[in-house]
Amino acid sequence: MKKKLFDQLSEKEIIDKLLKRLNFNKKGTFNFENDAGYLSNAKNYKTIVTTDCITENIDFFYNDPPESIAHKLVCVNLSDLSAMGSLPIAYTLNLSLNSKVDLNWLKRFTNRLFKLQKKYNFYLLGGDISKSLELSFSANFFGKVKSKNILSQNKCSVGDDIWITGNLGNSYLGYKIFKNLKINALNKDLEFYKNSYLYPTPCMFGSIASKFISAATDISDGFYGDLNKILNNNVGASLIKKDFLISSNLRNIISTNKSKISIEDILYWGDDYQLVFTTNKKFKNKINSLGKKNNIKLTKIGTIIKAKGIYEDSINAIKNLSSYDHFS
Amino acid sequence: MKKKLFDQLSEKEIIDKLLKRLNFNKKGTFNFENDAGYLSNAKNYKTIVTTDCITENIDFFYNDPPESIAHKLVCVNLSDLSAMGSLPIAYTLNLSLNSKVDLNWLKRFTNRLFKLQKKYNFYLLGGDISKSLELSFSANFFGKVKSKNILSQNKCSVGDDIWITGNLGNSYLGYKIFKNLKINALNKDLEFYKNSYLYPTPCMFGSIASKFISAATDISDGFYGDLNKILNNNVGASLIKKDFLISSNLRNIISTNKSKISIEDILYWGDDYQLVFTTNKKFKNKINSLGKKNNIKLTKIGTIIKAKGIYEDSINAIKNLSSYDHFS
Repeated sequence: MKKKLFDQLSEKEIIDKLLKRLNFNKKGTFNFENDAGYLSNAKNYKTIVTTDCITENIDFFYNDPPESIAHKLVCVNLSDLSAMGSLPIAYTLNLSLNSKVDLNWLKRFTNRLFKLQKKYNFYLLGGDISKSLELSFSANFFGKVKSKNILSQNKCSVGDDIWITGNLGNSYLGYKIFKNLKINALNKDLEFYKNSYLYPTPCMFGSIASKFISAATDISDGFYGDLNKILNNNVGASLIKKDFLISSNLRNIISTNKSKISIEDILYWGDDYQLVFTTNKKFKNKINSLGKKNNIKLTKIGTIIKAKGIYEDSINAIKNLSSYDHFS
Repeated sequence: MKKKLFDQLSEKEIIDKLLKRLNFNKKGTFNFENDAGYLSNAKNYKTIVTTDCITENIDFFYNDPPESIAHKLVCVNLSDLSAMGSLPIAYTLNLSLNSKVDLNWLKRFTNRLFKLQKKYNFYLLGGDISKSLELSFSANFFGKVKSKNILSQNKCSVGDDIWITGNLGNSYLGYKIFKNLKINALNKDLEFYKNSYLYPTPCMFGSIASKFISAATDISDGFYGDLNKILNNNVGASLIKKDFLISSNLRNIISTNKSKISIEDILYWGDDYQLVFTTNKKFKNKINSLGKKNNIKLTKIGTIIKAKGIYEDSINAIKNLSSYDHFS
């Protein structure tokens, strides 16, 4: 199929000037001068594959900084790799661009990809560029994990501890601020939450602790919905106290902005890309020490129980568990 | 990120009703109930990775049959796998859908994917669904090939034979008919060429003959442009006679429609998804017998020569070699 050229930039220029340096000179990319690339296969390892597409007006807005869009694309995919217990190796990139995008925009976008690739250690294997009305970006990410350490969403047992990484709700508040909800808080706090929405950070604890984790998923579709995937309509969860899911700073902001934001809203919202996972009780100290060593906040939030459903303080069932299904 | 539901169909319904059966019950797909899937790694094999995106109004039109769009998506990717010497294993699928798409449309689209998966023996590993203004489909395809048999675009030597598979131009004429160019030809011929455009068939000869091929690429960006990739500004090609690239039936149609279509136009057009490849002279009989055995038309169209450029009958250099660059 003949490739249309963009108004300002040819496909060749985009590749040569901006994308080639993202391949980190890996042999399997053929310097983007072959029909495809290859991944080498390590013995006893599996290649984890995940894909996500982010689209204008749904996952981001045109006026968002290009750095933010790059962040979101990388974060949604790395978060899935982590939830599978794997570390990233490489990715392919499909850019659907329109005339609103110019060289400077693409430079900023690819510079951020470069920075994130350096940070998390993965390279660009190949891709495709096309023209479209709306901006949209899809990526396939490849991770590696020892076959025996692949994590599942639903292999927990009754009595297992339930954990979350980091804090929930930062991205939700950021989104609300971004959408001009007037929140009564310090300017530096408003900035912090806005950045949590624009520049989400994946939590890579899944690959660090895969040996000790029984079930894991990333929180991308709302805490309740994602915890439900782990329970799999098979077991239940008794939560110690929902407040623990949220930072003390955010709890303060909620209490001074009561009509505008609630803990419940937060728990139905994704985008924080923290992990929820379960472990056998005997690994509690091990998990805590791995968290400390890697500077990752971990909170034990409850226990897997026999009775189906999600309960607060073992008594009150939490109703209205809407779950957002996900295609892989 | 909370997934928006479509007007008529939820994401869960699309997955459960239409996509789950495409996973062929492979373990690594987790029945689409995990954060990602995995590919198993065979020793001494490489995993070939290619990705292509097809977009409304560029690669297809909304009114095209959904079966045609499925065909194009599969064909562009299988053709790349073949050009690398590999056989398909699996793919991931990103669907960007809009409200023009209904259950019946998606049924027809996924039924054709199912049929092509059966024919070429590969399964759906995972994917993502999003909403967009225009329809667009991207796929990552995974192939396998023994490490030593991976094909390159540019490892030919002076004296190598140059071959093409099948016939060129069928898709080009089909596109012209589709765009209402009045062609003087039999109705059954018009139908045949239209179908060549709507339902392209990848030529999988690359994986069959990888042991004997020195360089290969698929003809997706025009014969001249793709042959140029093989020459790599390093060697040249002496073509026996360009007419051989085209079927006798199409040659007849050209001669009765001279003002409307020319051989030169055809040679700058891709979309036939045939292969152009080179082999050492000594494999000539082997290649011919592999073609016969697999019922694939093969034509020796020339020889790699020292002088750079593409020549007809070793004398006349063919000018104006526009090449359409491709991101992997």
